[in-house]
Amino acid sequence: MSFTIKKALIPTENGYTTTDLRIEGDRITAIAADLDPVGEVIDGQNKLLLPGFVNAHTHSSEMWQRGMIPLYPLELWIEELHEFSPLEPEQIYLSALLTAAETLLSGGTCVVDHLVWIPGKELESVAATVRAYQEIGIRAFVGPLIQDETQSKGIPDGGEDRELEEYHYSTQQVLDLMQRVIEDFHQPEAGIEMMVAPTGIQLCSEDLFKGCVELSDRYHVCRHAHLLETKAQQLLAQEKYGFSAVEYLKQIGFLGDRTSLAHCVWLDDRDIEILAATHSTVVHNPLSNLRLGSGIAPILKYRQAGVNVSFGCDGAASNDGQDLLEVLKVGSFLHNITDSDYRQWIAPREAVKMASEGGYQGIGLESEVGSLTEGKQADVVLYDLTKLSLLPRTDPLNLLIMGCPNNVVDSAWVKGEIVVANGTPTRIDLEDLRRKLFEQSEWTTNRKSAHVAQVEQHYRSVMNLPK
Amino acid sequence: MSFTIKKALIPTENGYTTTDLRIEGDRITAIAADLDPVGEVIDGQNKLLLPGFVNAHTHSSEMWQRGMIPLYPLELWIEELHEFSPLEPEQIYLSALLTAAETLLSGGTCVVDHLVWIPGKELESVAATVRAYQEIGIRAFVGPLIQDETQSKGIPDGGEDRELEEYHYSTQQVLDLMQRVIEDFHQPEAGIEMMVAPTGIQLCSEDLFKGCVELSDRYHVCRHAHLLETKAQQLLAQEKYGFSAVEYLKQIGFLGDRTSLAHCVWLDDRDIEILAATHSTVVHNPLSNLRLGSGIAPILKYRQAGVNVSFGCDGAASNDGQDLLEVLKVGSFLHNITDSDYRQWIAPREAVKMASEGGYQGIGLESEVGSLTEGKQADVVLYDLTKLSLLPRTDPLNLLIMGCPNNVVDSAWVKGEIVVANGTPTRIDLEDLRRKLFEQSEWTTNRKSAHVAQVEQHYRSVMNLPK
Repeated sequence: MSFTIKKALIPTENGYTTTDLRIEGDRITAIAADLDPVGEVIDGQNKLLLPGFVNAHTHSSEMWQRGMIPLYPLELWIEELHEFSPLEPEQIYLSALLTAAETLLSGGTCVVDHLVWIPGKELESVAATVRAYQEIGIRAFVGPLIQDETQSKGIPDGGEDRELEEYHYSTQQVLDLMQRVIEDFHQPEAGIEMMVAPTGIQLCSEDLFKGCVELSDRYHVCRHAHLLETKAQQLLAQEKYGFSAVEYLKQIGFLGDRTSLAHCVWLDDRDIEILAATHSTVVHNPLSNLRLGSGIAPILKYRQAGVNVSFGCDGAASNDGQDLLEVLKVGSFLHNITDSDYRQWIAPREAVKMASEGGYQGIGLESEVGSLTEGKQADVVLYDLTKLSLLPRTDPLNLLIMGCPNNVVDSAWVKGEIVVANGTPTRIDLEDLRRKLFEQSEWTTNRKSAHVAQVEQHYRSVMNLPK
Repeated sequence: MSFTIKKALIPTENGYTTTDLRIEGDRITAIAADLDPVGEVIDGQNKLLLPGFVNAHTHSSEMWQRGMIPLYPLELWIEELHEFSPLEPEQIYLSALLTAAETLLSGGTCVVDHLVWIPGKELESVAATVRAYQEIGIRAFVGPLIQDETQSKGIPDGGEDRELEEYHYSTQQVLDLMQRVIEDFHQPEAGIEMMVAPTGIQLCSEDLFKGCVELSDRYHVCRHAHLLETKAQQLLAQEKYGFSAVEYLKQIGFLGDRTSLAHCVWLDDRDIEILAATHSTVVHNPLSNLRLGSGIAPILKYRQAGVNVSFGCDGAASNDGQDLLEVLKVGSFLHNITDSDYRQWIAPREAVKMASEGGYQGIGLESEVGSLTEGKQADVVLYDLTKLSLLPRTDPLNLLIMGCPNNVVDSAWVKGEIVVANGTPTRIDLEDLRRKLFEQSEWTTNRKSAHVAQVEQHYRSVMNLPK
């Protein structure tokens, strides 16, 4: 199928131009004024055309827990997360569909899903997720969240001698599962890729990390992990290695130009140099970092050091909204209070570049996708600039990123296929999804977690909080 | 007109209950299960009923400049603001209408408009604003932004001997205008109140402040001002008074239980004690404080000290979105990174209370409005919990405040009148407003401000920024 988008506004180096853009097959084949109409003609007047963004870190199944978990730091929050996780592959399918829909309707064309799978139903979880992404037509990178250490190991000992359970799978069992996932589901040509995605240094052994590196090299899949999201994890790295977690990841070969690392809040200048030298990507998750009180990631420093930075919503249990435009807004404004020199601040035009070019760079696709360039794959989004929330008319990119846009995505294409038209996904029934989500859930309040109570005292003691 | 809302969910102390609520005249006259239907019956099933919020600090006419001003700190940003302000009362009317519409559609029932009026057309500006608010039916407090010192006085001298122009009106002329505004437009019984609202210590003489206090006492109107929004203003207060701006405002009698103060970012512990002792209200404007790099206001400290805190969007030139729910979200999450003890964090239930009870307290109406209580005025909002952005169902208030709600306001009442129904304002034609805003504006980019260039060198020098 071909499309000719007529008279859309697109950003130039410093301003805007009005132009036509042609999509044939999966590619952008022409960008010029007054193109002959080929295929379906799309009216681009008073619309802004941008490359799609990558939602570069989320956990789709957490959709079932949005609005559920009270205000806790990560280490307590995660106890509730595991206690109330969905247990049926059908739920995993629906939450992946919702994640994809909210990503597409806020400017994203690709989702990186650090998937919390169902214990004992791991392959079914991945199958349900992949099915959802293929149905709705979004590009997706799926990296099951793997670990080989029990949850409580994620909190520093703080000198205490704790007796902790063994994890329910051995390291080898986890790696075997991961290999099976890659062999069964990795289909780059279809826009569905698997990733190796150990949870992070807090819950993974060295053997697990090394096994992941080996799988990544053997199958040429991307690597993904959480990195130093909280101060507790920084303390833990000191307990575990006696030196920086970033230095550790470098030594065992996990870093590289196909490695993206979520959060990166507690890194120092030496760590930042390592990320730059290894061409690793930082995924900025500003809203969950606020909700969980993790801190402000030093994003201006990353940019000054030449580290690639992209944006992620993070899972809906820690950023209960899942709107990429909100993430770009808060994720750029937030740094204005960390450096008084406004010349360092992230302008909307830069944020858009980070979310698109930076996003695809973090998953190794920068030469194929991520900008409005002839020959690149057509993962593009058309925004309706006549919506009330984008009026009066001033600077379109400023309105989009600094404002609070409401239902402004008009159309979106992934690999040349139209997946959103007239503000709604074309290939699924959004109303049917809405009804199922309503029917399969119920109002809750003040769910009390037994697990939180178990670890809270230890956590408060280690973090020097009042009893 | 009367209304009976049937089977709505309302928050109780720790959970929710399903109940009916009756509105007769301008009051809530009954809250109980199974009320006999009186007047129009509203289906409240799967809807959440809350008291309306106060948008406790904004500048409506800045709507014309949303998306226009690049990333600058306040002192440079304001030069652009004045250069590109609207100049026709008809524009002022449209921007007030848009401000009211966005407030109503994000849960607000009252707007506090620190109005930037048109020089030479001051009374026409207020008339246009009041007309808009009365037409759409929102409760409004209008405080024209007055000053009697020229703009450049807002930046500290830093030891430099600057020659600055006189302001174009004398102090007495400004006060005479304010008196005229109060006499002509203050109509509390109609839900339209005037306020005395000097810009702040940075641009107002002692005579202007004292004149405002006198007018406020004589006419019993509320007081409003900006307070220590930026570090530069803190320096300026030291230059001007040699001691704290808060101490100064207390000495001249400006503080009190009908005084609300926007921003309050750079206050110390002694200042906070003064605010608590004088029962003054802090208006938290988290998004503009981020956009302008002003800082994070110490909201947790205010709350611990017993200072009343409400929320404001601030003007659209410094918070280009105007969504109260977004302000409540960011304005509560933001403080999680300022105190590692999560027991101090602001839960959604608290944020809602601050925005409603706290909001009305800041404008002296706490005994009349701001909670779901029999006998109080009916300024209430009904949210549709079946919208996709609030699914799956978990805790309704958490979803509303921690999520990213999209078109969730179903209905709203102000003083018992229905002003929003089926998600759209009932008394104005929103589509007509949208078309006018589109037609009366144009895309712009990289507007260069001559004024910014004039003050930038001095600003950078005073603030110790690299040349």
